Amino acid sequence: MSKSPVTVLGLGAMGTALATAFVTGGHPTTVWNRTPGKAEPLAALGAAAAGDVAAAVTASELVVVCLLDHDSVQETLAPVAAELAGRTLVNLTNGTPAQAREMARWAAGHGIAYVDGGIMAIPPGIGTAQAFLLYSGSRPAFDTFAPALELLGTPHFVGEDPGLAALHDIALLSGMYGMFAGAFHALALVGTERVPAAEFAPMLRDFVTAMAAGIPHYAHQIETGDYASGVVSNIAMQSAGFTNLLDTAESQGLSAELLAALGPLMARRVAEGHGAEDVTGIVELLKR
Amino acid sequence: MSKSPVTVLGLGAMGTALATAFVTGGHPTTVWNRTPGKAEPLAALGAAAAGDVAAAVTASELVVVCLLDHDSVQETLAPVAAELAGRTLVNLTNGTPAQAREMARWAAGHGIAYVDGGIMAIPPGIGTAQAFLLYSGSRPAFDTFAPALELLGTPHFVGEDPGLAALHDIALLSGMYGMFAGAFHALALVGTERVPAAEFAPMLRDFVTAMAAGIPHYAHQIETGDYASGVVSNIAMQSAGFTNLLDTAESQGLSAELLAALGPLMARRVAEGHGAEDVTGIVELLKR
Repeated sequence: MSKSPVTVLGLGAMGTALATAFVTGGHPTTVWNRTPGKAEPLAALGAAAAGDVAAAVTASELVVVCLLDHDSVQETLAPVAAELAGRTLVNLTNGTPAQAREMARWAAGHGIAYVDGGIMAIPPGIGTAQAFLLYSGSRPAFDTFAPALELLGTPHFVGEDPGLAALHDIALLSGMYGMFAGAFHALALVGTERVPAAEFAPMLRDFVTAMAAGIPHYAHQIETGDYASGVVSNIAMQSAGFTNLLDTAESQGLSAELLAALGPLMARRVAEGHGAEDVTGIVELLKR
Repeated sequence: MSKSPVTVLGLGAMGTALATAFVTGGHPTTVWNRTPGKAEPLAALGAAAAGDVAAAVTASELVVVCLLDHDSVQETLAPVAAELAGRTLVNLTNGTPAQAREMARWAAGHGIAYVDGGIMAIPPGIGTAQAFLLYSGSRPAFDTFAPALELLGTPHFVGEDPGLAALHDIALLSGMYGMFAGAFHALALVGTERVPAAEFAPMLRDFVTAMAAGIPHYAHQIETGDYASGVVSNIAMQSAGFTNLLDTAESQGLSAELLAALGPLMARRVAEGHGAEDVTGIVELLKR
């Protein structure tokens, strides 16, 4: 069976990586970029460079868009709504759940099957075992084109609400940024005493990894709202011990701003009578 | 060869776990706690309960102290400085590098060999393969008692500067707290849409673990101050994308306070002309 044609709109670093995966995976691939010249390396691999968006869109049943941001997607697609009708649009542009839902409403209004996606990889990772992608929206459209999408990385379909892929994407990135904030603070702290990175970094990586193994337990506490069962280390003790963390940063000449927000949240939770519960209970104070 | 006697001062949850590991490991173990009654379960295992601190200290060449905080350690040990002379004091009480150095000076002034330590485990983990302990201070004293200390968990001697164990300990905890902050935010975020914890939590754990593999790379950047080599994802793009994270929290009714500090640091680094470099460069803005 011949492989389905694919169109890729947007040839930044990520769009180029996506188009490369399709064309090297044997799919007839049409590409387009607002500024020309970006298509040349892909044309050398066998991709067709379309002269305009309408020509690009009508070349394939599957249209993958990966642009700078939500505004670029709207500007690029609005003029070709009629050409997109009856096709499948997979939007891999970074965005929020609200933006994904807005795109899905627009697509539904024009008879376009819509799948929103989040890419959990950097461009060089596309097509490798490390890459995974989150999808949400039209399940039939996703299923139809899953063989092509699998070339990009392991696909996870997380639900028919089109906002869910972005929600998962941003939640995972939030977890990553918190880990980075802690790791950067830790590395800066040992750096104040010239502790060799080669000695400390593997220890930190292994410790963070070991502590991350507790995430499913914490997730269960947060889902159920029961922070008093299976307490690993009570928040009263942790809140008191957090002072050592702040004092040490201060005396080593380091701002603790990356972690400081935890202190008042833990203290408030203790003050509200939850001192014997787990530290996860601070999420109750984040809800508005 | 008979095993060396050990004294444990302080029988909170952690002190009790330490004493239990020594006594079940075959060491003649003497224990003491400010308030009586805590020693009874240990006495049932074969430990000797001392009537006062002086009697506890003189029972062993190795005295391990694990109390509430630095003040408790000073109050408990000051009256028995003479009895401690010529012995080894291993202080496993939570504290800062400055507190460890102060204790080391005090010990040196009284002819006491001093080892400071940090316990990277919760009490039930003591004696298991998951536990590891950081030590710094007198290397000869550490070496002499390493066979006993190994019963508690894998020992890491990190240097003769007595403050280094606490520095490593607090740096590792800082890394953990950052990871927790990110994970709790992530879990609260998907919770706003009732995404099942059992589905999302393993994905988050695996993603954080995969991203933590980059820590040695980031550590090298921070050690050398070269944030322009081996850029994974430049800070200008990450700073722009961070807006999606904040907007999504806002629209889901969640405070982003646990992660918000990253935003201004990234923006400032970009404004100062480092937009093409890696995000690790924010540590330069933490230095005072």
